This record gives sequence, C-alpha cells and structure tokens, in this order.
Amino acid sequence: MADILTQITTTLLARKQADANSSYVARLYAKGLDAILKKIGEEATETILAAKEGDKAHLVYEVADLWFHSMVLLAQQGLSADDVLRELTRRHGVSGLTEKAQRQAKEI
Amino acid sequence: MADILTQITTTLLARKQADANSSYVARLYAKGLDAILKKIGEEATETILAAKEGDKAHLVYEVADLWFHSMVLLAQQGLSADDVLRELTRRHGVSGLTEKAQRQAKEI
Amino acid sequence: MADILTQITTTLLARKQADANSSYVARLYAKGLDAILKKIGEEATETILAAKEGDKAHLVYEVADLWFHSMVLLAQQGLSADDVLRELTRRHGVSGLTEKAQRQAKEI
Amino acid sequence: MADILTQITTTLLARKQADANSSYVARLYAKGLDAILKKIGEEATETILAAKEGDKAHLVYEVADLWFHSMVLLAQQGLSADDVLRELTRRHGVSGLTEKAQRQAKEI
Repeated sequence: MADILTQITTTLLARKQADANSSYVARLYAKGLDAILKKIGEEATETILAAKEGDKAHLVYEVADLWFHSMVLLAQQGLSADDVLRELTRRHGVSGLTEKAQRQAKEI
Repeated sequence: MADILTQITTTLLARKQADANSSYVARLYAKGLDAILKKIGEEATETILAAKEGDKAHLVYEVADLWFHSMVLLAQQGLSADDVLRELTRRHGVSGLTEKAQRQAKEI
Repeated sequence: MADILTQITTTLLARKQADANSSYVARLYAKGLDAILKKIGEEATETILAAKEGDKAHLVYEVADLWFHSMVLLAQQGLSADDVLRELTRRHGVSGLTEKAQRQAKEI
Repeated sequence: MADILTQITTTLLARKQADANSSYVARLYAKGLDAILKKIGEEATETILAAKEGDKAHLVYEVADLWFHSMVLLAQQGLSADDVLRELTRRHGVSGLTEKAQRQAKEI
C-alpha cells in the first residue's frame, strides 16, 4: 500500500522539470514556496473542520490532501516522504534487537 | 520503510486501551478531539516556519510531527494511515493496466 | 481611528439582511460558518508568511484581513468587535481607580 | 471602548525595554519572531475550535487572544493596531465626502 508514497515521489520529482502550466503541481512549484505553504495551512484547517464535522470519509480526504501537499513541499525542498518515514522510524521503530528500542517505542 | 506507518498504527491502537497517564498518546486521547486538533494546527504552523527557515533537517522533523499527529487523529476516529494511503492510491496510483489510470496519474 | 471598527460592524450587520450575491460578505455568510473559518485559517497563515518576509506594509495588510474576517465571524455568530474590546478591557484595562486593576495591567 | 487598543499598544511598547523575565510579553519578545508566530497559529486554531463548539463567550475569549497576539507581533515589528485600523479605514471607511468612498464601502 505504502508504495503509493514512492510513486507520488517519482511523479513530484518529474514535475520539477515540467512546464509551469503542464500540471497542478508544476503550477504550484512555479508560484514558489509561499504558495505551497499556504496550501499546508489551508489543508490543516480543512482537516480540523472535517474532524469536527465527524464525517470519516471527508476526514480521510482532507488528511490525504494534507499529506500530498506536505510531499509537494518536501519535493520542492529536495526532500521526500522517505526522509519523513526515516525520521518516524528513528523515533518510533521497534528494531526487535535491543531492549532500548523497545523502551523507546513505548514512549509515544 | 513504510512499514513504520503500520507499526505506529499498531501502537496507536494499543494506546486506546491504555491508562490515560501511561504515555503521551494516551494523555492526548484522554484530553479529547480538540486537544489533538490543536496539535494539528500547531504542527502545521511549525512546518511552515521550518520551511521558511530553510533548515532541511528541521523541516523533516516538523513534517514527521505533523504526520504523526495526523495518525493520532485518524486512530482516535477509528481510522488509520492505510485509509489515507488508499485514498492517495485512488487519486494518484498507476495500475499499469489501464490507459485511464495513466492519464489520471498525469493530472497531479 | 477605532470608529472604523464600529463602521465595519454596522456594515457587517446590514449584510446579514442582504441578498447572498450582493456582496463579498453576503456571499461568505451564505456559504456558512466553515467557509468563514477557512478564511480565518488562511489569513493567519498569510500573516505568518508576511511577517517572515519582513515587508511591513504587507504585514499590516494581512493583519487587517485577519481582523476583518474575525469581525465577519463575530457578526455571523451575533457578536461584534465591541465584545472583543470589552474582553481586552477586562484583561488589560487600567481603570486608574483601583490598585488591583493596575497590578493586573502589569501582568501582560 | 477602542481606547483599550491604544492602552495595550502603550504597554506593549514599554515591554520592549523590560527585562526578558519581567512579564509574559517580555518573555515572548525574548523568544523571538517565530515564537510569536506560533502563538498566532495557535490562537487561530483555538478561534476555529471555539466557533465550532458554539460557545459565544469562549469565541470572544479566543478572538481576544488572537487580536492581542497580533498586537504583540505588530509591536515586535515596530508597528501597531493604529496601522491596522488605518488600513481598514482605507478599505472600508465612509468619509461621507465623496461618492467614490461610499461606493467602495459597499464592496464588502
């Protein structure tokens, strides 16, 4: 399932070479960092409103928008979802090899 | 790498049975939905500020925080990262089987 | 100078009787509470970005947008800037009559 | 009523000379711009949540927090509520002297 993050990363990288008007993401890159950050603020607000509404399908839709635009931001900065997953693994991953890791995994 | 999302999901579900004071996430569940949504707003703001600062490691750290708290929100609502990945696949996945899917994948 | 808040309040109240398509604010009321709250989130993000940019005129512009849309929200809920100014007076006002008020005014 | 904005402005300016630990605002200045901007994001989120809750007193309380922290931001940048009120007057003020101003005032 999570291969989709890799697929999206590949597409987002390809869009960096594309014409500014060729796609939604290419247009967003062309507008620059602040335009992408406005989308992060917007999607966070919409996630909050969807959660208050209590409509689960709508909430999933808005979190997907938030994660997608986070990935556009990461790509624009030369980063990717892999960097985020690596950070999450560093924090919360259970290696199964050391007791320390297991203790850390309990901390969340 | 993305197995970490599954690992975190498992931990977040387990925390729903735990004592309110036994961990950070258990405390957050106990405080309720609005407390989790405040964290979403907070982490979105911190993501924006980290991006403006231009420190890539800091940006990855804040996006990880944003995704993690999105997952806490999803878990609190009986949902998970899998639902979000499924929605992203529906939008952006290339099945390789149909031309239609390939055309749709070009739309982002 | 602050009479402008009263003038805007009067206009915002009048818009509640107006046709949904007769003005920007009438359209916003017609869209409902969530549309107004999205504007609050949007203007807060734009205020943050303008402050990071360091352009003072732009910052004033965005804070004006944020306060204006706060006033639309207040009007939609049957409240006004006066309620906010009263709350700020309660917290920070120096009556000059009592020592207690002066001590409280020092707390900010 | 709106004199309170002038009173707060005076206090906020005085805090710029104060010891970093002498008050809440002095501590916020010492932490720097990003700490103030995090408060803007936080108070915007709390305003949204209070509006969804439908508790009017709570909403007034959160908008007061949002306006107060906007004023801290303005003061930190060498600006004040007066600059915002002047911008709102430019946009929405009815001078009563010119038809143009009246037409503009109808646009909100």
